[in-house]
Amino acid sequence: MGASTFLRRLFGGRGGTPGGVQHLCALCDALLSESGEYASTALAREALAAYQGLDERGRSQLFEVLARDYSPSPEAVGRSASAYQADPSPDTLARLLETVEPARQELFRRLNMAPGGTAALVEMRRVLLRNLKANPGWRVIDADLMHLLRSWFNRGFLRLERIDWRTSALVLEKLIQYEAVHAIQGWRDLHRRLEADRRCFAFFHPQLPDEPIIFIEVALTRSMSAHIQPLLDIASPVTPAHPDCAMFYSITNCQEGLRGISFGNLLIKQVAEELKREFPHLRRFATLSPIPGLRRWLDRKRSERPQELAALARLEQPDWHLGEDTEALQRMLPRLCAYYLLHAKQGDEPLDPVARFHLGNGAALERVNWMGDSSGSGMARSAGLMVNYVYWLSELERNHERYWREKAIAASPQVEKLARECVLAAPPEKGAAA
Amino acid sequence: MGASTFLRRLFGGRGGTPGGVQHLCALCDALLSESGEYASTALAREALAAYQGLDERGRSQLFEVLARDYSPSPEAVGRSASAYQADPSPDTLARLLETVEPARQELFRRLNMAPGGTAALVEMRRVLLRNLKANPGWRVIDADLMHLLRSWFNRGFLRLERIDWRTSALVLEKLIQYEAVHAIQGWRDLHRRLEADRRCFAFFHPQLPDEPIIFIEVALTRSMSAHIQPLLDIASPVTPAHPDCAMFYSITNCQEGLRGISFGNLLIKQVAEELKREFPHLRRFATLSPIPGLRRWLDRKRSERPQELAALARLEQPDWHLGEDTEALQRMLPRLCAYYLLHAKQGDEPLDPVARFHLGNGAALERVNWMGDSSGSGMARSAGLMVNYVYWLSELERNHERYWREKAIAASPQVEKLARECVLAAPPEKGAAA
Amino acid sequence: MGASTFLRRLFGGRGGTPGGVQHLCALCDALLSESGEYASTALAREALAAYQGLDERGRSQLFEVLARDYSPSPEAVGRSASAYQADPSPDTLARLLETVEPARQELFRRLNMAPGGTAALVEMRRVLLRNLKANPGWRVIDADLMHLLRSWFNRGFLRLERIDWRTSALVLEKLIQYEAVHAIQGWRDLHRRLEADRRCFAFFHPQLPDEPIIFIEVALTRSMSAHIQPLLDIASPVTPAHPDCAMFYSITNCQEGLRGISFGNLLIKQVAEELKREFPHLRRFATLSPIPGLRRWLDRKRSERPQELAALARLEQPDWHLGEDTEALQRMLPRLCAYYLLHAKQGDEPLDPVARFHLGNGAALERVNWMGDSSGSGMARSAGLMVNYVYWLSELERNHERYWREKAIAASPQVEKLARECVLAAPPEKGAAA
Amino acid sequence: MGASTFLRRLFGGRGGTPGGVQHLCALCDALLSESGEYASTALAREALAAYQGLDERGRSQLFEVLARDYSPSPEAVGRSASAYQADPSPDTLARLLETVEPARQELFRRLNMAPGGTAALVEMRRVLLRNLKANPGWRVIDADLMHLLRSWFNRGFLRLERIDWRTSALVLEKLIQYEAVHAIQGWRDLHRRLEADRRCFAFFHPQLPDEPIIFIEVALTRSMSAHIQPLLDIASPVTPAHPDCAMFYSITNCQEGLRGISFGNLLIKQVAEELKREFPHLRRFATLSPIPGLRRWLDRKRSERPQELAALARLEQPDWHLGEDTEALQRMLPRLCAYYLLHAKQGDEPLDPVARFHLGNGAALERVNWMGDSSGSGMARSAGLMVNYVYWLSELERNHERYWREKAIAASPQVEKLARECVLAAPPEKGAAA
Repeated sequence: MGASTFLRRLFGGRGGTPGGVQHLCALCDALLSESGEYASTALAREALAAYQGLDERGRSQLFEVLARDYSPSPEAVGRSASAYQADPSPDTLARLLETVEPARQELFRRLNMAPGGTAALVEMRRVLLRNLKANPGWRVIDADLMHLLRSWFNRGFLRLERIDWRTSALVLEKLIQYEAVHAIQGWRDLHRRLEADRRCFAFFHPQLPDEPIIFIEVALTRSMSAHIQPLLDIASPVTPAHPDCAMFYSITNCQEGLRGISFGNLLIKQVAEELKREFPHLRRFATLSPIPGLRRWLDRKRSERPQELAALARLEQPDWHLGEDTEALQRMLPRLCAYYLLHAKQGDEPLDPVARFHLGNGAALERVNWMGDSSGSGMARSAGLMVNYVYWLSELERNHERYWREKAIAASPQVEKLARECVLAAPPEKGAAA
Repeated sequence: MGASTFLRRLFGGRGGTPGGVQHLCALCDALLSESGEYASTALAREALAAYQGLDERGRSQLFEVLARDYSPSPEAVGRSASAYQADPSPDTLARLLETVEPARQELFRRLNMAPGGTAALVEMRRVLLRNLKANPGWRVIDADLMHLLRSWFNRGFLRLERIDWRTSALVLEKLIQYEAVHAIQGWRDLHRRLEADRRCFAFFHPQLPDEPIIFIEVALTRSMSAHIQPLLDIASPVTPAHPDCAMFYSITNCQEGLRGISFGNLLIKQVAEELKREFPHLRRFATLSPIPGLRRWLDRKRSERPQELAALARLEQPDWHLGEDTEALQRMLPRLCAYYLLHAKQGDEPLDPVARFHLGNGAALERVNWMGDSSGSGMARSAGLMVNYVYWLSELERNHERYWREKAIAASPQVEKLARECVLAAPPEKGAAA
Repeated sequence: MGASTFLRRLFGGRGGTPGGVQHLCALCDALLSESGEYASTALAREALAAYQGLDERGRSQLFEVLARDYSPSPEAVGRSASAYQADPSPDTLARLLETVEPARQELFRRLNMAPGGTAALVEMRRVLLRNLKANPGWRVIDADLMHLLRSWFNRGFLRLERIDWRTSALVLEKLIQYEAVHAIQGWRDLHRRLEADRRCFAFFHPQLPDEPIIFIEVALTRSMSAHIQPLLDIASPVTPAHPDCAMFYSITNCQEGLRGISFGNLLIKQVAEELKREFPHLRRFATLSPIPGLRRWLDRKRSERPQELAALARLEQPDWHLGEDTEALQRMLPRLCAYYLLHAKQGDEPLDPVARFHLGNGAALERVNWMGDSSGSGMARSAGLMVNYVYWLSELERNHERYWREKAIAASPQVEKLARECVLAAPPEKGAAA
Repeated sequence: MGASTFLRRLFGGRGGTPGGVQHLCALCDALLSESGEYASTALAREALAAYQGLDERGRSQLFEVLARDYSPSPEAVGRSASAYQADPSPDTLARLLETVEPARQELFRRLNMAPGGTAALVEMRRVLLRNLKANPGWRVIDADLMHLLRSWFNRGFLRLERIDWRTSALVLEKLIQYEAVHAIQGWRDLHRRLEADRRCFAFFHPQLPDEPIIFIEVALTRSMSAHIQPLLDIASPVTPAHPDCAMFYSITNCQEGLRGISFGNLLIKQVAEELKREFPHLRRFATLSPIPGLRRWLDRKRSERPQELAALARLEQPDWHLGEDTEALQRMLPRLCAYYLLHAKQGDEPLDPVARFHLGNGAALERVNWMGDSSGSGMARSAGLMVNYVYWLSELERNHERYWREKAIAASPQVEKLARECVLAAPPEKGAAA
């Protein structure tokens, strides 16, 4: 970008944008045209500071400029593509790549040089994602950020760390703040979750030293847990040694700005190996998981097949599970749940997002638990049911491969039987999409 | 890459390549087509191991395949470019980027997931660079590796570490091995270079934990050093406290595989700041630098202007500097050196590579030192001369900017005077390119 | 101690003691007579476990045995002393030392070998101290523990560590638990005390890795604070940079079992040096301190000189300071306070323990602050007054020396004037002891 | 110590001592009489510096003063002892202890407060020990230093650290310098001893952070090594994985100033446990040890029983083992060695110091190795023989206890048979002391 562009932009070239954004865009152009390294680090630092000073409206204007002015020129692309077609040599390829790569990418790479640059770009993507639906044109920015962040957050750069009561308070308070599955009620609750019968692990990245990227909470138990409330009870006694089961009861992605970059399966696998090393006698690694899409699916099914599912009307009553005569539901719901997990699809994968995640990792659907989560949200989301997915270390790869090749779901005979006994399993809807 | 390609390649599609390379290519294709993360980490690991098992010939064959089969298809590029030209939308841009990016880049990103992946790719580029001249077609591979390594070795990821006698022997022995300017003669020599009147700093990268990327050696002195031998003398006494000068006497890039990614200017700047913090009374940061191109240039000039430079014939004699009557040379050579540094050009930059580096960083040419390096190589490369470049912290940015905008060289009045007094400064070649 | 003693003790030699104590004493005797090191480490470990299993009554019985049976034999002492007097040679001295040293010391040294031994002995002394008044005979145990702990907690072994929000939660929760001057109200309060305008430092000992020995809280302010409430206010804004004053507002000894071993003066001095390094522009290091003995002394004085001090009757009313017409007290109390600090004595040192501590460290009495602490306890202990002691780094040693040689108190002219104006300063008690 | 003593000493009280020592003694007295902590830390620092400035003669004079003037007064001891005999109360005991403890101990405790104090006292004892034979009166100083160092180097304060090629060069060069059993020939030799088939561990103390206290070198082998030369060969190949044997082939106490404080048995035990954790399949922990006293004992025996041991005359010839016809010696010497180890005594313990150490630790004498050490010193000390002591973890405590109670030596049947077959085993000296 030549000096003339630089000056035009600096002095009013972008009429509509207010001072802050205009100044920032000038900094970005200067940064892109700078060949010296001190200067560019200094400019990157200044540009980040300017970005952080923008309000919501300023950021929107910036994104507009980034989407509009930093994409490759269609004419230049056409020329480079033709040249490459005519003679696909290293030189024409190099020129093609250079022409096609949006200037945004180089801009973001240079911003990343400033102290705190990576964190700022993660944060920028967080803001961007929030507004992407309303501004589909900004998807070009997202694509560039995603491309770079995926490279910088390559698994090779992540390190697994155990979190316990010896961990820095700075990190611990972030667990409290980020926990997305079963909210942590302050420091006492957190402390209970880090006692001797619990484990917590997180991935960290060298550029975000005090920020967990993703973390998982594990309870060491004797036999596989069916209910979440005892695990979350602050007053529960610390159980004695010799666990045979590791229950993964919560896993949280902390950085919204890294959405779409998957860390979970790697985390579970490394944590399982770590635990196996510490407790060679662990026989089972299992989750105690919500079924977030169950209630919505039940409602839909009920409207489709009102007669067969009439009993589900009871779910509308508050605290229905505390009442009497719940036997019918206790028989019906687990079967519907098993059927839902095995047969309700989105494309050729399970409709349920948690099922997609664990089954895609190579876990097996092991058990459906009645009143697994009787909290308000547990009742609302999944009629109080929870499921266990089991990670058999020896079968992970096989399950994983069968899932990705054939979309085959590994499930225990018990769960398969439940699904077969489900009222919906019978005709008329034989094989129909759920 | 579809399954058919995969199978074709697996079963003999590349007739000419021997078993090892064929197997490795099959692994690479599998890695590119794998969507699950365990599997891809495992494949990446396996592919790296296969790569490390290849001999020279195998690597050449691999590079052939990488250059030939992993570049974008010209037809597809043409289609995507046309679509983008017709309608430059986020979707057409995304498709264009995807089509244009060589599959090699994704392959390298995935190899980087394996433990030791980054180190292996740096090493792969080292081997590639060595053979690039003979195989110009491989430049497409180099471009992709360079693109990724530049992103991963972004300055934001580097950390400065002091090296001293407390440092791990594993790292210290690498200094001995890598030192490129003034060879380190074993552990005693190294120890002397880490005494209380010396400093050594290196950049490290989280993915190469025991590998210095670049390191610099500094002597803390009273007044600016003119001669290198006293600094390199193992038996020299450790000088007392209160230095006023930091002499940068050696700077070595350790990783051939990162050639072209510049770390030196950032290192010098950070080290100068670090030293300023430790020794607030330091008045000067200067180098004691070789002039590697001087002798060759003198020879060339002598053949062009044999009469004026007749005295240089003496340089052909071994140990000429130990003889008598060197006054004439002692008068002539520093002037020629000053002239060389200020006026001999490659394009519009100095011909001398060390001058390009320091002047480009914003340093100033301060002094020419007679018999600055009387070692064999010092005599051979630069007739025993050395120069001091000075880093005035307050003027770095200005010098740097003037250098990059106008190719102006900051030099002391003393050096400018020497250049003016040079025999070549007179007509006939007034201002002619040197 | 021979095997016979061992067996006698093991099988009922100490009729009165219950099983646990008897077993423990047997272990102690075995430990003392053991010459092999594995065995003694194992025995030490077992003995500590047995000790930790004792209840209150068991510990009392143990202390009885330790006081009675592990002191040197008077006869043997007599013999060794005579031998030494007759011939004061290395051998007679060695024998004398051996005879005189209570077996308890060797026992404690051996217990200290077990993992956690040091912590257990510190804890044992804590229990012992609590019961010392009621059991004066146990002072012999205390003397031995003190002798050893003083040696093991030699300042050379302590390391200063900064405490901030990056510190381990394990350590931070101990600050909440131990803080003795201004109680910390949970994690939010703690967090406020570790913000950017605060500093906290502690001494740690290698044998008690997660246990602060003593810690100090510092507020960085502009000008010297006169009131404690603003410093303790969780909602107070974090003040901007460029402090000129470091206010030591709380210092807490954490380990009751180390009572009598002084760490405070060293801590204050090291912290002042540390802060001076971080903030070269700090002009003043001062405390904001309570005057814990003031109210009690005022009450005593009032009963001695009821007429002159009649106005003090008002202090009996709750919330007197919230009422009107406090001018008389506002004039009288600071003068009495200054008089108290300068003239009320215990022996030849100040009666007030906080004054003894700071003045003995070399600080100077700088200012008396009206309503420095208007909390309930502040009103109750010192009628709402607080004082500033100033640590002038350049005068510490001189003040310190004058204090210890002449018991001279360094005070500002302002405080000295207040004391002279005090109603008690006049005859009849001119110079009499307060 | 009152001020008058102080002044007397300062101004010439010790006529004979030169300026440096006189000044130091004045500092020591001031240090002992100082009650403030800053002052005493400053004095301790100054006194240490003065001590370090003394030459050999100055130190001797200092030791004279320390031995003469800092022992308890015989009269005061007599009085305190009588008072304690008359009434053995806490107070009389406290006074007795105070009177009896040499002022040296408090002096050393106070010197220990200075930075580097512990190291300086360890060094002081090293110098003292060297001159103790010539100056028996200094034993009182040694007793006090030993008393304190034993307490400060209590095993509870030691931490085990693995030493490898990642360790600081500062520590590694000390291994080269200290190694006392099989000298390390520079950095390459050291590197070989830290390769993947070797382990090295050391104890460190928090007050001597860069100083190993004791270290051990281990070779991981398949089957028990009989010869030391292959283990010491720099060029030997690094052996593949899956060792079944850990050979302790060198153990060195580094700090002469800690002589008499035993660390070795604890080190061996902890290292064995550490190795067992890393290599669960290790079947045997054994030493390959010299028999330092063998040759001397053989010479003595030969002079006692010249006829039976006539064959030993051959040992006088240089390189006898390289000659022919060594069968007779090859039969005779191992038997004599076994006899020596089992029956030659010093008191009721083995005469051989290495045997005393390992057998006292609970090891068992396993095997005698012909030409175990064919180096010059190996031939000179023990006629080329070496022995293996085995540490069976499960039998350590039993062996240890039997050794200490009955002085019973655990030996393999094979070694016992060798001893029975020894020419000296027959009458006339049946069972007589060797």
